[in-house]
Amino acid sequence: MVKNISILGSTGSIGTAALDVISRHSDKFNVVGLTAYSNISKLVEQIHEYSPEIVCVQSNDLAIELRKQISKEVEIVIGEEGLCNVASYSKTDVTLTAVVGIAGLKPTIEALKAKKDIALANKETLVVAGQLIKQLAKENNCRLLPVDSEHSAIFQCLNGENAKSISKIIVTASGGAFRDKTREEMKSLNVDDALKHPNWSMGDKVTVDCATLMNKGFEVMEAHWFFDVPYDDIEVLIHKESVIHSLIEFNDGSVLAQLGVPDMRGPIQYALNYPNGRLDLPIKKLDLLEFGKLHFEAPDNKRFPCLQFAYEVGKQGGTYPAVLNAANEVANELFRKRVIDFLEIEKTIRTTLDAHDSINDPNLEQILQANEWARKYSFQVIENQLKSKI
Amino acid sequence: MVKNISILGSTGSIGTAALDVISRHSDKFNVVGLTAYSNISKLVEQIHEYSPEIVCVQSNDLAIELRKQISKEVEIVIGEEGLCNVASYSKTDVTLTAVVGIAGLKPTIEALKAKKDIALANKETLVVAGQLIKQLAKENNCRLLPVDSEHSAIFQCLNGENAKSISKIIVTASGGAFRDKTREEMKSLNVDDALKHPNWSMGDKVTVDCATLMNKGFEVMEAHWFFDVPYDDIEVLIHKESVIHSLIEFNDGSVLAQLGVPDMRGPIQYALNYPNGRLDLPIKKLDLLEFGKLHFEAPDNKRFPCLQFAYEVGKQGGTYPAVLNAANEVANELFRKRVIDFLEIEKTIRTTLDAHDSINDPNLEQILQANEWARKYSFQVIENQLKSKI
Repeated sequence: MVKNISILGSTGSIGTAALDVISRHSDKFNVVGLTAYSNISKLVEQIHEYSPEIVCVQSNDLAIELRKQISKEVEIVIGEEGLCNVASYSKTDVTLTAVVGIAGLKPTIEALKAKKDIALANKETLVVAGQLIKQLAKENNCRLLPVDSEHSAIFQCLNGENAKSISKIIVTASGGAFRDKTREEMKSLNVDDALKHPNWSMGDKVTVDCATLMNKGFEVMEAHWFFDVPYDDIEVLIHKESVIHSLIEFNDGSVLAQLGVPDMRGPIQYALNYPNGRLDLPIKKLDLLEFGKLHFEAPDNKRFPCLQFAYEVGKQGGTYPAVLNAANEVANELFRKRVIDFLEIEKTIRTTLDAHDSINDPNLEQILQANEWARKYSFQVIENQLKSKI
Repeated sequence: MVKNISILGSTGSIGTAALDVISRHSDKFNVVGLTAYSNISKLVEQIHEYSPEIVCVQSNDLAIELRKQISKEVEIVIGEEGLCNVASYSKTDVTLTAVVGIAGLKPTIEALKAKKDIALANKETLVVAGQLIKQLAKENNCRLLPVDSEHSAIFQCLNGENAKSISKIIVTASGGAFRDKTREEMKSLNVDDALKHPNWSMGDKVTVDCATLMNKGFEVMEAHWFFDVPYDDIEVLIHKESVIHSLIEFNDGSVLAQLGVPDMRGPIQYALNYPNGRLDLPIKKLDLLEFGKLHFEAPDNKRFPCLQFAYEVGKQGGTYPAVLNAANEVANELFRKRVIDFLEIEKTIRTTLDAHDSINDPNLEQILQANEWARKYSFQVIENQLKSKI
């Protein structure tokens, strides 16, 4: 049976990798929906190559521009509502959510309500609304399929196993661009330094989150929701080669690990084709002899406090995770725009978290309100800091 | 349902580890048969603790001695025929074959004919009679469950996977006691040096086979039969820490690995309880931080030719594998008895292999004849060498 796929964020790195997988296995997959934020020229190419039935762009102007450039019959929808339309499009079997940021949340909810399986590449979905999403997936009998390399690794190791036998999940981390930097050195490092990720080529926002280890914190929170494992049984292990993508320790002392070269097409095909197994792909084969050694060390919480924020906030629950995410989004962006220094990212998050009054078991509206509050508050924190410097 | 277990070789290291697993999970396992070669005092203890219905010892004298020492009702059988009786004992569900050497072959065949699942810890069974055993297992609808740590690792990684997706099996090797020795140094190394295995505590014969890498060669041959993978898709990787017990590479570039501290109770419980999952065991948990680094290197075929003998003989098939095993058994024993030097082990095997006329698709009798021929021939090779030295 051919699976119909909708891709939210089809012009990004995950989206294009997914389309590459699909084009190599057109007997298994068919594209029905695509969405782009603003990269019209790439979307035009994709429409001509994959013939989706529905596409979404950010604004009316972009929609008009897009219509001019394409000869094919295709429904064009716009903005957040359009994203939701593509995510829940009637013919879709699996929705791949590869948009960045909290923008991925609502479309995922709509997709779940429409009983679509979700291949989840958007971090924020589970980070800010884990409980809500898990409940919706359960109610609608939908699969939540991980696309992150770490969670895909755990998911692959868990195949055929009894989840009750898990004693610990070990999420590996490259350590990011500043793995070996002192706090003193971090003070003067800027966005150009932070974007030098040792192993993976990803978007700028995520690469900066790798440098703070906030990204790893988010992955711990995602792992908690994906695999129903308590925070105390999730560990982070710094492994600079990023060859082992993550591990599971079982109650019999046995540890399973998934390894590979960094190529997102691996996790993507595994999620899209689940539960029908692995697909042939021209991914470079791992050669452990090329490495000779694999290294492991404990994360340094003093140098990278953001990782602990995630554990703290994950355990607290409520609207704290939404605040963590929002404050980080703001601080990350202003660091990338060279408004604040690297160490001010963690400071902004800490201050915003400390000022927040959390609501337990929040609904979507309350999560989005906390998100808005935290965005405003953290902007203000940064503004005040900047003023104090003048 | 409680599984009834018979253990061939219950007083050895695998046998006692298996009984430890069984005693911790008496709701899952019941001992019905035990066999010992000559360690009567240990067998007496085991009989009192586990109340088997049938036990086997090597000779009539030992049987008389045993009868004197036990108060329990138990059937005592003797020798090779007795081993076969225990292996195929009517109430047995799973027979664990943990005897050393070709003595394990006939009882395994009898167990398969009696439709018992086999937990295979005897190397020689698949090495010398892989085709025969696979066929019997298939005909009688029996499971062949690996107990070696390497094959258990592969078996665990394969759980939930489609075996057709395997692109390569990677068997790890500690490299044995002489991993870092030159050929020149090997000349003067003796059995005391060879028995200093870096990671595992095993019987002397196997530990010497580790030093020559013959053991790893046997494991390659076993992997071929266990998992139906061609020899060209089985690789050996020297990994001195023995933390990764083996790996599978799949067609999508993904690699799964099983890791753990060296404790045979892990593979044993996995085999005995299969397919019912993992059992709680007080096995030390792996801590990768304790290691910090894991090392990988290619095996050096020039320094360790025995590994290549296994590939060569495995591909040739016929009675060559029986000859490889027999010549190695003789040479290994005479090295342990300080009759020959370390490098004479490989020489004896090579000379014996070269002198052999192989029979294709041999039956059991032909395999045992080749075994007998090779034992005699290799003795003679060694005798001639010794004479030439005088």
